Amino acid sequence: MGALEVVPATPLERIELPETRLRASVLTALTEIVGVDHVRTDAYERAFHAAGQSFRDVVAVRAGQLDFVSDAVVYPETTAEVVEVVALANEHRIAVVPFGGGSSVVGGVEPRTSQGQDAAITLDTTRMNRLLRIDETSRTATAQAGIYGPDLEAALAAHGYTLGHFPQSFEFSTLGGWIAARGAGQTSNGYGVAASWLVAAEVVGPSGTLETAPFPNSAAGPDLRHLVAGSEGVLGVITEATFRVRPVPEQRDYRAYLFKDFERGREAIRGMVQQGLGVAMVRLSDADETRFFGAFNAVGKTKSSGRKLAEQVLGQRGFGNDACVMLVGVEGSMAKVVSTVARTTAFALAHGAMPLGAGTGKKWLESRFEMPYLRDPMLDRGIAVDTLETCTEWSNLPTLYEGVGNAIRAAIAKQDRRGMVMCHISHAYPGGASLYYTYVYPMDRSDPLGQWSEIKRAASDAIRDHGGTLSHHHGVGVDHLPWMEAEKGALGMRILRGIKAEIDPHGIMNPGKLVS
Amino acid sequence: MGALEVVPATPLERIELPETRLRASVLTALTEIVGVDHVRTDAYERAFHAAGQSFRDVVAVRAGQLDFVSDAVVYPETTAEVVEVVALANEHRIAVVPFGGGSSVVGGVEPRTSQGQDAAITLDTTRMNRLLRIDETSRTATAQAGIYGPDLEAALAAHGYTLGHFPQSFEFSTLGGWIAARGAGQTSNGYGVAASWLVAAEVVGPSGTLETAPFPNSAAGPDLRHLVAGSEGVLGVITEATFRVRPVPEQRDYRAYLFKDFERGREAIRGMVQQGLGVAMVRLSDADETRFFGAFNAVGKTKSSGRKLAEQVLGQRGFGNDACVMLVGVEGSMAKVVSTVARTTAFALAHGAMPLGAGTGKKWLESRFEMPYLRDPMLDRGIAVDTLETCTEWSNLPTLYEGVGNAIRAAIAKQDRRGMVMCHISHAYPGGASLYYTYVYPMDRSDPLGQWSEIKRAASDAIRDHGGTLSHHHGVGVDHLPWMEAEKGALGMRILRGIKAEIDPHGIMNPGKLVS
Repeated sequence: MGALEVVPATPLERIELPETRLRASVLTALTEIVGVDHVRTDAYERAFHAAGQSFRDVVAVRAGQLDFVSDAVVYPETTAEVVEVVALANEHRIAVVPFGGGSSVVGGVEPRTSQGQDAAITLDTTRMNRLLRIDETSRTATAQAGIYGPDLEAALAAHGYTLGHFPQSFEFSTLGGWIAARGAGQTSNGYGVAASWLVAAEVVGPSGTLETAPFPNSAAGPDLRHLVAGSEGVLGVITEATFRVRPVPEQRDYRAYLFKDFERGREAIRGMVQQGLGVAMVRLSDADETRFFGAFNAVGKTKSSGRKLAEQVLGQRGFGNDACVMLVGVEGSMAKVVSTVARTTAFALAHGAMPLGAGTGKKWLESRFEMPYLRDPMLDRGIAVDTLETCTEWSNLPTLYEGVGNAIRAAIAKQDRRGMVMCHISHAYPGGASLYYTYVYPMDRSDPLGQWSEIKRAASDAIRDHGGTLSHHHGVGVDHLPWMEAEKGALGMRILRGIKAEIDPHGIMNPGKLVS
Repeated sequence: MGALEVVPATPLERIELPETRLRASVLTALTEIVGVDHVRTDAYERAFHAAGQSFRDVVAVRAGQLDFVSDAVVYPETTAEVVEVVALANEHRIAVVPFGGGSSVVGGVEPRTSQGQDAAITLDTTRMNRLLRIDETSRTATAQAGIYGPDLEAALAAHGYTLGHFPQSFEFSTLGGWIAARGAGQTSNGYGVAASWLVAAEVVGPSGTLETAPFPNSAAGPDLRHLVAGSEGVLGVITEATFRVRPVPEQRDYRAYLFKDFERGREAIRGMVQQGLGVAMVRLSDADETRFFGAFNAVGKTKSSGRKLAEQVLGQRGFGNDACVMLVGVEGSMAKVVSTVARTTAFALAHGAMPLGAGTGKKWLESRFEMPYLRDPMLDRGIAVDTLETCTEWSNLPTLYEGVGNAIRAAIAKQDRRGMVMCHISHAYPGGASLYYTYVYPMDRSDPLGQWSEIKRAASDAIRDHGGTLSHHHGVGVDHLPWMEAEKGALGMRILRGIKAEIDPHGIMNPGKLVS
């Protein structure tokens, strides 16, 4: 990397922000609701809330180009304050953009306005950060939606419980954001995805507050929780949520296995989840990702003779260039961990794998949230990196895997550049699995967003054409909007827009996202 | 029962049916779509489709009082035919009532009309009864929605698979009905409830066809499957569904345990599901139900001296009048069954239970669909029997159990009659469980429906007041409609009605149910 030219991000003081468009009377009314310290119009707050963490967001912010800037950032502390803020905004036709950690990677938080609106406020939920109660008998907990991942887990751990939702954004994302985006944590196999651990939600919108009931199951009509999960702020602000918790596991075991190729690893995972092995996490890197991480971890180290020998022996046994690493995490009681690890190993061996032991697993666990930190230093040096993900049925996984990988590679190559496309299975279900792509390519500094858009479009088209979902856990935001109708169908979109129109007639809730 | 006066049901030929209100041109158009043999206006077909199987339905039909009668019963064979029938009905403002097995116990299939409609047709789906495909790799299957339970299971079994959905109505209910009502089978612990095994659905409505995608998970906005599950025909006709299947289990083990009281049994079940024991079914009869089935099974037999001795010994060990039977079903591989039964027994013993062996379990399995057959002979003799069910969190289960039981008992006693109220936990989740009540009382032959309505109202009020859901798996129909808003909230109802208005602007789909 030393040889590459470094172009750092534009500092805040060089970014020009437009004047706030809010009338003084509205600003005053907002301060009367949440207190004068909690209505912010300073440059830092407005710039911080102008975008999320999508590639487009980050490149734009680094260049000092903020297309949309909030006219004020409001920090309510209670549901009652949110009700008042939303009512005020509805009365004055001001857009309200709910903002938790701001970690959306699909353009979910940019403060756009819609027809008839002349200002936008960002409603930052992070002062609403209290764990409200734990029901140990029913194994559920209720918290305000703006609580960050680490704070939530610490508060639960004090009672011996965990939610077990650890997305890569864990440190910078909130309970409400996980629900709004229908997120999934790395250990979703063991703890569920947001849509499955969500027990009940409170959502404040322009027409009132929706409180879904916390029943474990109900046949009293359609389940409105599943409208809240994935609503991305367009129906209202998620203010509180009740969710399933489990005892903090007595034991954790994360270990790796090497397969001769992707297909064998994939079939091992399919068998494991279809037989209900009960692992907390299972991931399988494809050959490119496996080689990349091997090389990445070896940077700055000289290859020892022991390592060279090991590689030679592996090669003789058929673990060559196509070899793929599978990571498996097991959590629970000592007895459960021992028996599940034994069954997992038996599965892996039956598919010709070689156990690599707990070292790789331990390392992964320690660095599980670190990857995104590399993006900025890479962008400084003109190296673009982005990720995207999808999900499909097992029978269609090979087709989707090839189709999307090829599309990204072709789109990068179109510009006479050589990129790197890696993929792993990140979440597995009895019915199928998700595919998580990471792609790295030399950035066109003259038009980085045009270049990125072309690759993104090629990938999204390929996902649609090869039977994948637009997103397994990132959401829709503005980045995926053009492909929504292909997935939901014309009638599906009418239903979603109909709901929006019914409960948000002036379209003030997070305009431009999901259903616009 | 011999001493009771017998009043049999009114025979069909004594029931007067109104003339069909359909114009000849519409009847002709219908026959052009589905064929002349598949548009029925004869008395048998119209009477058969006039009601479902709720207490109200059965008592009315037995009395020959049909409040609503279809003007024609239409049997399409394909989705394309359904599309045409619905379009025709929409054009002529004719109500369309989807009808699978007609086993609704909440008034879900009566052919009502709404404003501006002068006729109703019943759309019977049971000619749409083909298993369309099995995806063995993804463990899913797709079938037309009108297939009956036994036919579906036989078709799947031919490939070695099962859906595992066995409601008490199994013999007389259909795939589409299970989804429309958000049903649950007796082995829902092992195989899931309709809303969880449903992978994708095709729904034909007046504004087009909704096809939800079959992805194992998706973050592309709200999950529309959960609008289909529980839609009760008011959004359209479910024509096809894809669902999870599993291999036919190698082994089944159903056995019983006796607990000293309901509380100990309840706590054992809670522990079992929260620790993920993986049973297919677990049920716990309360003391009244336990005694009733003991007595019921002993009818006509003289008590042997062995049995008397056994009862004496049980009494000495603390299994007296409060004793409760728990039934546990385990299904899967031989190894899984052996280990799960061992763990279940350990759980039961830890809660002071006495294993009763496999005899009771075997008997239950053999007669699992038989109970409803008793209703007619009982009604003949003036004995009313009805069931209702609810669900709540574990922490609230004792309150709900007492509250609803007391309300039903009080409502029966109000009329100076002595009834019997029994209850069992029928479905258990990590977060809570369902309660299934059976109540039997001497029918007021002068006003059986007034009497029943009073009891039903008292029970539903108690469910609402004590934090239960209106229904765990029966649905809403017309019987539960008055309590819907208490559960969904004003905004929740606006959302549901908004969806309905958006995609069924003339309100032709199953008027009067769920959201009216």
